[in-house]
Order: sequence, then C-alpha cells, then structure tokens
Amino acid sequence: MPTLYGYFRSSAAYRARIAFNLKGVPVDLAFVSLLKGEQKSADYTQKNPQGLVPALETEQGMLGQSIAIMEWLELEHPKPSLLPGDNWQQAQIRAFALAIACDIHPLNNLRVLKYITGELGASEAQKNAWYAHWIQSGFEALELSVKKHGGKFCFGNNPTLADVCLIPQIYNAERFNVDLSAFPALMAVYQHCNSLPAFADAKPENQPDAQG
Amino acid sequence: MPTLYGYFRSSAAYRARIAFNLKGVPVDLAFVSLLKGEQKSADYTQKNPQGLVPALETEQGMLGQSIAIMEWLELEHPKPSLLPGDNWQQAQIRAFALAIACDIHPLNNLRVLKYITGELGASEAQKNAWYAHWIQSGFEALELSVKKHGGKFCFGNNPTLADVCLIPQIYNAERFNVDLSAFPALMAVYQHCNSLPAFADAKPENQPDAQG
Repeated sequence: MPTLYGYFRSSAAYRARIAFNLKGVPVDLAFVSLLKGEQKSADYTQKNPQGLVPALETEQGMLGQSIAIMEWLELEHPKPSLLPGDNWQQAQIRAFALAIACDIHPLNNLRVLKYITGELGASEAQKNAWYAHWIQSGFEALELSVKKHGGKFCFGNNPTLADVCLIPQIYNAERFNVDLSAFPALMAVYQHCNSLPAFADAKPENQPDAQG
Repeated sequence: MPTLYGYFRSSAAYRARIAFNLKGVPVDLAFVSLLKGEQKSADYTQKNPQGLVPALETEQGMLGQSIAIMEWLELEHPKPSLLPGDNWQQAQIRAFALAIACDIHPLNNLRVLKYITGELGASEAQKNAWYAHWIQSGFEALELSVKKHGGKFCFGNNPTLADVCLIPQIYNAERFNVDLSAFPALMAVYQHCNSLPAFADAKPENQPDAQG
C-alpha cells in the first residue's frame, strides 16, 4: 500500500486525502509536522528533496506535488474519474484546479506567510489583507465558472479535480476569516461536498496528527 | 487555428509557446500587455475572467492556465509526447513541472512583485531577495532531479513538460540577476534547449510584442 506523507493543515495534503477517498483507494497516512519544521529534516528531505508535503511513497519511489499525485492516481485508478468528459472538458476542470493550485494556494501557504511577516516585516493586518486579496481575486473567476458549469459540484453533478482543490482552499479561507459572501455558488458546492464522507473524512480536524 | 493570448515576458505564456513549437502545432498569437494592464480590460476579462495570460481560444471556447493548455495539447496531439513513459515516469515529469508552476513561478510574477513593493512596502533589495529566495530554494530539488534523471534534457534525451517549464523560469531568473552557479545540471539543460529552434523561437525577445 502506498504511503501519503502529509500534515493535517496542509491544504495540498488535504486535496490528496480527498482524492484517495473519492477513488476508494487505500493509502497509509504518515505525518510531517510543518509547525515543527519536520519537512526540512534530513530524514524527510532524503525521501523528498523538495521538503514539502504531500508526497506519495510507492514501491517505485517518491512522488511530490499534489496535482501530480492525483494525476497518477487517475491513471492508475480511472474509476470514478476525477477528470471526466472529452479533452476540452478535462482541460476546463484542470484549469479550475490549477487556478487554485498555481494562483491562490502558493501565495497563502505557511512558508510564504512566514516570509512576509518575517523578512518583509508585514503586520498581522497586512498578512490578513494579503491572504484575503489572493483568495478574493482568485475566487471571482471560479464563482463565474461554477455558475456556468456547476451543479452539485463545480462541474455538473459528480466530483472532479476542481472540487478536490476548491474545498481545502475554502476551508483555509474560513480559518483566516476571509469574507466569502460574494461567492454563493462556491459556498453551495462547499456545503454539499462536506456532507459527503470522502470530503468530511479528509478534513484537517479529522486527522490523527490534529490531536498532537 | 486556435489563438494563444500571451505577453512576451510572461513566463507561463513562454511555456505554452515552447509546447506548441515542440508539437509543431500552428497557433495564432495575440498579445495582452501586462505592463499596460490590458489583462484586466473588459474586452479580455470577458473572454478570460481570470484576467491572466496565457489563455487559449479555440472553437470550443477559452481555456486558461498554461499547464491545462499543455495537457490539452498533449491529448489532442500526442506526438511527440511531452509526457512520455509509464504512469510513474509521467508523474515524475508532472511533479517537476508543477514544482515550478506551483512553488516558484506564482511567487515571482509581476502582480505579486507589485504587491510586495506596493502594499507591503518592500524595498528594491527586499524584492530581489524575495525573488532569488524562491528560485534558489526551489531549484535545489530540481538540480538533484536532473542529476538523477537527466540527459540532454531534464528527463533523458527528449524534451518534456519539465523542460518546457524550466527554461522560462531560468530565463526569468537571469533577467533578475539571480546567482545560478549552484545549479550546473539545470544550466546545462538550459543551454542545450536554447540551441533548439522550438525553444529559441519562443524566447521573449523574439516575440512581436517585445518591440512595443
């Protein structure tokens, strides 16, 4: 069985947990505390030189990057598909997921927030404004997309890679008290997804390392 | 023929240009000046609500996100493959590309540099240190990867999605005078790629809008 290295609060690890749950593919969970800096330990960086979570360990080796892990999972276990439809539809789903994974999340993760409050001397208020700025400006286009393509989920009535990326991002935004009232379509998808075990079981507070 | 909306200096648009060149797939180029803020114009955001480049317009509509565009291109035009090999090998190539697209580039693009010098009041020196920090910390793991998997290119002796993402990122790093002496394996791939027309023709200075 593969092992998924993660951290309960890591939004990217949370994505991967949801994806394994939706596929019904069993995976061992291993925990790397970002708060304690364990991702930079010699033990972990020997396995994953990038020093980030998540990473997936299989008999073939180690694989980093949540989107790469989920693309691999999709190839290995095609059903139920997280990238359904024709090439164009798949591309739209990927673009939605990547708008989060490339243009929102990287600006708001722990190492970046530490840099702006540390090296750049940003105040708590400036940090919160920074956080909210990238969420709100990024979510505008996603809200339009869900209004156009959405059903119970971001694209129609089955979960896709788009939902897998959206739910952890909204979870984090709520943790930072970002005003999400301008995004009713995204919030409706969020409520629906969280009613499903595959999403609910992957929540940060339901992970063993949340108790540490 | 599809139309690729880009900007000569956009590293993500540069990736897409290389990919179309490597595939030998003709595409019309359209130009959106990020310097003039044209990506936020009503004309452009009506087409691409995210207000970023690149975006690809086809008969089926508009597609954002460089990685999604290149995954679509790979599905539509499988040869020559930018994601060769078995599922695990493909996953490693994607992880390399995403380490750039998710963990380096988003922190160093124009809109973010503007935010840290504007709202956060970073000095020119702080901006350059920020830029170099994300490049150098991100490149460390990529250098190890190329030492392990590389040949003339990041993975063996054929260009993949990894090279398509790496070359524009090094190009940008050089523009910001980042010290890259710790990354000889990456630089060897860079030199080799730039000797090939598919990469050289896609360079920022060879685009029509570079003359504006």
